Amino acid sequence: MSERIRQLIEDLGRTETHLHHRDCLLTWEQSDADLKALLLATEIFEELYRANCDARLFRGGLAVSLFRDKSTRTRFSFASAASLLGLSLMDLDETKTQVAHGETVRETAAMISFLTEAIGIRDDLFIGEGHEYMVEVASSLDEAYEQGVLPQRPAVVNLQCDRDHPTQSLADLMHLQKTFGSLEALKGKKLAMTWAYSPSYGKPLSVPQGIVNLMTRFGMNVVLAHPEGYDLMPDTAARAEQQAEGSGGSFELVHSMEEAFADADVVYPKSWAPFHVMEKRTRLLRAGQGDKMDQLEKEAVANNARFKQWECTEELMATTRQGEGLYMHCLPADITGVSCEEGEVAASVFDRYRTATYHEAEHKPYVMAAMILLSRFSNPARVLLRALERGAERRLSS
Amino acid sequence: MSERIRQLIEDLGRTETHLHHRDCLLTWEQSDADLKALLLATEIFEELYRANCDARLFRGGLAVSLFRDKSTRTRFSFASAASLLGLSLMDLDETKTQVAHGETVRETAAMISFLTEAIGIRDDLFIGEGHEYMVEVASSLDEAYEQGVLPQRPAVVNLQCDRDHPTQSLADLMHLQKTFGSLEALKGKKLAMTWAYSPSYGKPLSVPQGIVNLMTRFGMNVVLAHPEGYDLMPDTAARAEQQAEGSGGSFELVHSMEEAFADADVVYPKSWAPFHVMEKRTRLLRAGQGDKMDQLEKEAVANNARFKQWECTEELMATTRQGEGLYMHCLPADITGVSCEEGEVAASVFDRYRTATYHEAEHKPYVMAAMILLSRFSNPARVLLRALERGAERRLSS
Amino acid sequence: MSERIRQLIEDLGRTETHLHHRDCLLTWEQSDADLKALLLATEIFEELYRANCDARLFRGGLAVSLFRDKSTRTRFSFASAASLLGLSLMDLDETKTQVAHGETVRETAAMISFLTEAIGIRDDLFIGEGHEYMVEVASSLDEAYEQGVLPQRPAVVNLQCDRDHPTQSLADLMHLQKTFGSLEALKGKKLAMTWAYSPSYGKPLSVPQGIVNLMTRFGMNVVLAHPEGYDLMPDTAARAEQQAEGSGGSFELVHSMEEAFADADVVYPKSWAPFHVMEKRTRLLRAGQGDKMDQLEKEAVANNARFKQWECTEELMATTRQGEGLYMHCLPADITGVSCEEGEVAASVFDRYRTATYHEAEHKPYVMAAMILLSRFSNPARVLLRALERGAERRLSS
Repeated sequence: MSERIRQLIEDLGRTETHLHHRDCLLTWEQSDADLKALLLATEIFEELYRANCDARLFRGGLAVSLFRDKSTRTRFSFASAASLLGLSLMDLDETKTQVAHGETVRETAAMISFLTEAIGIRDDLFIGEGHEYMVEVASSLDEAYEQGVLPQRPAVVNLQCDRDHPTQSLADLMHLQKTFGSLEALKGKKLAMTWAYSPSYGKPLSVPQGIVNLMTRFGMNVVLAHPEGYDLMPDTAARAEQQAEGSGGSFELVHSMEEAFADADVVYPKSWAPFHVMEKRTRLLRAGQGDKMDQLEKEAVANNARFKQWECTEELMATTRQGEGLYMHCLPADITGVSCEEGEVAASVFDRYRTATYHEAEHKPYVMAAMILLSRFSNPARVLLRALERGAERRLSS
Repeated sequence: MSERIRQLIEDLGRTETHLHHRDCLLTWEQSDADLKALLLATEIFEELYRANCDARLFRGGLAVSLFRDKSTRTRFSFASAASLLGLSLMDLDETKTQVAHGETVRETAAMISFLTEAIGIRDDLFIGEGHEYMVEVASSLDEAYEQGVLPQRPAVVNLQCDRDHPTQSLADLMHLQKTFGSLEALKGKKLAMTWAYSPSYGKPLSVPQGIVNLMTRFGMNVVLAHPEGYDLMPDTAARAEQQAEGSGGSFELVHSMEEAFADADVVYPKSWAPFHVMEKRTRLLRAGQGDKMDQLEKEAVANNARFKQWECTEELMATTRQGEGLYMHCLPADITGVSCEEGEVAASVFDRYRTATYHEAEHKPYVMAAMILLSRFSNPARVLLRALERGAERRLSS
Repeated sequence: MSERIRQLIEDLGRTETHLHHRDCLLTWEQSDADLKALLLATEIFEELYRANCDARLFRGGLAVSLFRDKSTRTRFSFASAASLLGLSLMDLDETKTQVAHGETVRETAAMISFLTEAIGIRDDLFIGEGHEYMVEVASSLDEAYEQGVLPQRPAVVNLQCDRDHPTQSLADLMHLQKTFGSLEALKGKKLAMTWAYSPSYGKPLSVPQGIVNLMTRFGMNVVLAHPEGYDLMPDTAARAEQQAEGSGGSFELVHSMEEAFADADVVYPKSWAPFHVMEKRTRLLRAGQGDKMDQLEKEAVANNARFKQWECTEELMATTRQGEGLYMHCLPADITGVSCEEGEVAASVFDRYRTATYHEAEHKPYVMAAMILLSRFSNPARVLLRALERGAERRLSS
């Protein structure tokens, strides 16, 4: 196993990245080499874990998390990444702190970072807010580092914003790579990213946006499907087309789940809120008209109900490539008859792919560790090699 | 001191346990050897701590806690055990996560466990729920481990359920062992586990149930005393009788505190709610009739008040073996004139035994560490020996 | 850099402290040598951090925090200190625990401390409460340690009480030392600790009280300025005068911001609530008349508004020593036109000194680590030397 790890570290050493002192906030702003390096580092951390190697790169220091939305799996993924790297997790709970008391982002970013190596942020509830907030934090950290206020420039990890969900989409890409054998093998494969019915409302757009923008880049033929009116952010399609051009893949938008599923190698049926609804929501909130949110929600849920037939059924799965298309989901899925009356996916379909979706999720802590590594170290390959060569066990063996 | 530790480790090595990849959810489901191993491992961790040995068996990884009831001491005990072993504590706060959003237990158990070594759960509020929940979590982890979703099978630590409170009862057993010199010395000693009056309501039954089932097993003559109507779960008495038979001890149920205290070597006066009240409470909750809980509480408190004479007084203590019976309590005690007007124990009695009850509590973090050790390692003695022999200090000495 | 650290450690070794098994709850109760040792230890931890040395003195163990007031920077400072020393942070959240259920302080202090090395407490909201609480916790720990219930005597760190804010004032002293070159250089310098207008209400008195009592001790000419009626605690002035006498400095109370600023080397303009208002607040709360708090707040805010001219403006800054007096603040500041309409300081003044105030704040985690070190180790210099000489990196280098 050690041989395989050395090989991966060598590959990483040959990959020229520019992520040092920068952050992977949106995958489409990163170079191909940066993405390749992130995937390699993810795999190295996974192999080190399985080989029972102590992969801690730090002896103390904080990993700060800030969640502006409820979360289980992302919260635990980030905590796991922190522990893996030897960092102490510290949650910035906005209800317990003075952030709400009018402190500027700039000041808070510096104040919490004197001994901080990474800051993970989830801010996905309001269109036009999440990414902007992360950029503001990142540039505050740049400034504080340049002025010598901070002895290090902490990594900012996007744990989901309004535009992208890079730790999810990269975990998904790892899953595809493992399932099909290599990144190369993804070329020409058809991936259907489709809307699906859910009784709930206001699910973020960042997963579908992240998927169509990332997978087109690896030569996949990506079909985005949703009912009329369930648009993603306006620039999504144009960018996905551009990504596809460079990679030999393709991007297509259709309004039929059937069309998307036909002969698909991979299907990703998942609900999201229409962009115009999310925008209206943000406007109401900014105008202090939170009371009108209920009305908006009622309308949105009622509109969703017109599309209950957008469900990932056995019939639809049978139309995928040889009836064996890979079902993917970022979890939790709305499973018909299990977590809701009518939902995104039939229970029997989900059951068959449950273990696969768990494996898909398993990559996330390591993707986060990889993001921290590449942002915090100028020579990540050498650091990993040193961690490997010190030969310390993660778990004492008998 | 190191010689003593080596001796204990050798004893542990000779004790054949079957706790690897299993959990001590109920003490009465474990073999004598398993319990002996837990006590030995507890003592070894205590000695390592006092000898300033670094006892960390992990370099990173999570210890997850889930508290469905308020808690100070158990929360801190588990945090201490995690830190002792080198694990990062991560609280699964059901108000902050999506658990409340309909995720199944199976999925959550897997999602939080990719880098998790132990999950501690306290779920003691509703009869017929707590133990079942822990079993469900444990079997979900078994499944995920068998399917290769989890690279390790985390230990499940019962931090108190509706039936048993094994970390408390084993800490209590350690306390008895220390006080009387050995496990052997407990044989033939009389222990009075008795109900006592408290102005509060709804205290769990798991402590008395745990005590009478565990101590009968070590040859003690256990007398359970409570007012008519304050029954424990129905199977408690039969099981305690059975345990006593095998060990040469005895079990008896009486309805008089005086009778229980007479010539007792050990007294454990503590309030609990009647089983039928706890059952009704669960039924109301399940039926969504939370509004009727207030009425039930009022009735229960009023009924308690009929038994204010069930107090551990100096007069009663004088009737114990040579007037020097050992007073025990899991804390916090309702102390007459201190924490309430009328309560479980007279202030002067509690004062005399305060330090003893603190020592009793001190064992809990180490019991939890022992449970994690035995569940996570197939050869716990060799692992502890390696920890001892590496000779690292817990606290840098000068 | 290592040479410089060795020098500082030698200095520390020559400084006779009496803080072992004691706590620096109020700076004015400590000897000069104790304060010097705290400053030296702070600087050593800072240098170790910058030199990438692993400064962990513990391998496991808890650092407990208890915040009875909202906090960001102090919370993160304490978390950082804990991580720096190798301790696991554990928050004692009074809403989640049974502290609210009538447990005595004595019992809780013991129960949370079996594996605890430090307890940090912030309790600044009520006059006559915070310090008393810390003293009670500290003496409970003394008792438990003496009785053998606790295997170690945890340090109590005052993270701000009603009287003093020693981690702030010592960080401020470090800042002055760095700015002016040495402690010696502070002699004869004029420091203006002045009240300033803020639209908010109820800010604690501990910062001005801490500053005038600490800085007079280092030979500074301290001028305290506030509007009539905005008195600090009654014993403040007398003590500050006494401190000044011993050091060759001076203390003066004036009621004019202009007078205080004139030729000042250092200005510290900051709002606080009048002592008599804070006292009344405590009385109302104790009498269960929380409903009258709103009325008190309204009156207090209205009274504040009479003193809006107490603002640190460019005009005032021009009157300081050569127009270049050092502006200090414990943050967050109420900045006119930024965080509020009218506040403590003009935006242009704050902007010019922003980086300086951040550097001022940077010392706090290291001051806290120093307090823990001196309380927990009888020979702190030798321990730091061992940490330096083991040569472990804090962050793996490539």
